[in-house]
Amino acid sequence: MKSLEEKTIKTEPIFSGRIIRLQVDEVELPNGNTSTREIVKHPGAVAVIPITSDNKIVMVEQYRKPMEKVLVEIPAGKLEKGEEPAYTAVRELEEETGYESQSLEWLISFYTSPGFADEIVHLYVAKGLVKKENAASLDEDEFVNVLEVTLEEAIEFVREQRVYDAKTAYAIQYLQLQEALKK
Amino acid sequence: MKSLEEKTIKTEPIFSGRIIRLQVDEVELPNGNTSTREIVKHPGAVAVIPITSDNKIVMVEQYRKPMEKVLVEIPAGKLEKGEEPAYTAVRELEEETGYESQSLEWLISFYTSPGFADEIVHLYVAKGLVKKENAASLDEDEFVNVLEVTLEEAIEFVREQRVYDAKTAYAIQYLQLQEALKK
Repeated sequence: MKSLEEKTIKTEPIFSGRIIRLQVDEVELPNGNTSTREIVKHPGAVAVIPITSDNKIVMVEQYRKPMEKVLVEIPAGKLEKGEEPAYTAVRELEEETGYESQSLEWLISFYTSPGFADEIVHLYVAKGLVKKENAASLDEDEFVNVLEVTLEEAIEFVREQRVYDAKTAYAIQYLQLQEALKK
Repeated sequence: MKSLEEKTIKTEPIFSGRIIRLQVDEVELPNGNTSTREIVKHPGAVAVIPITSDNKIVMVEQYRKPMEKVLVEIPAGKLEKGEEPAYTAVRELEEETGYESQSLEWLISFYTSPGFADEIVHLYVAKGLVKKENAASLDEDEFVNVLEVTLEEAIEFVREQRVYDAKTAYAIQYLQLQEALKK
């Protein structure tokens, strides 16, 4: 097997924002040539598949400025500095949906855009949901509508491209797989 | 339902690179307040699930600078300007694996990081694979090892986090679901 590593020759910081940073790395390729890599640094995120006692999926409808579209997604949010992903999952579920979970299980973690960004999403399944009184509220620049839908409705959302992002598509396919394995 | 749209007040271009662009938009929120959105613009990409006649998945091992890790992924690549996604899929499959497909079907498209980027991935399933003589070669800054693995091996790669990105995790789960539905 060929060695594939790219060594960093130089890192040029371009931008440091509220959420992401951008840098351009000059790299030495495996064949000795050089190239550049445009890299977005992201703090990482969690996403939660919340399942109610009557087997509905709790989803949030949200405006996504990069696409200028309203998308239906599973609840998700960025890791605060030093925060354990499982803690972020509990916090974001409460902020976005008002639910507390009595059973939170890690399912998988994945990088979302490995070609240009280091964002990782840690995905959890939350069951034993209880509506919390005085639930923590959303960040002041966050606005969502909460939906509780059946798996069939969620699959229809995928078909209609109202669900249109990788983590939510993965989550719905996961629930389809669990259904199929039960039979 | 609340209206969720965010109106653009001002767009500040920050960076325009070989692959991505970065801008910061000032937006008017649904409640009339203002905020900023850091937005990465990306040309979009395709990914292909190539299945051989003996039911193996063709995967590529590749160094991903943002994570500084070697990952195993399904073949994928960026859309060239004006290129139809199905054409990109054929081209990338040939460049990365040397295979031509006699049956390419669109499966799903999804945004990878809807919070900060507009990257979309169009996912295809390729069957009827034939090794092409004089196959087109990789971009000059691309280096990959090609692997042909069973579904069980691919699932093991997910467990070991050698497969560690959303599109490939989705692809493997898709094949698991097809297996489960067959039974």
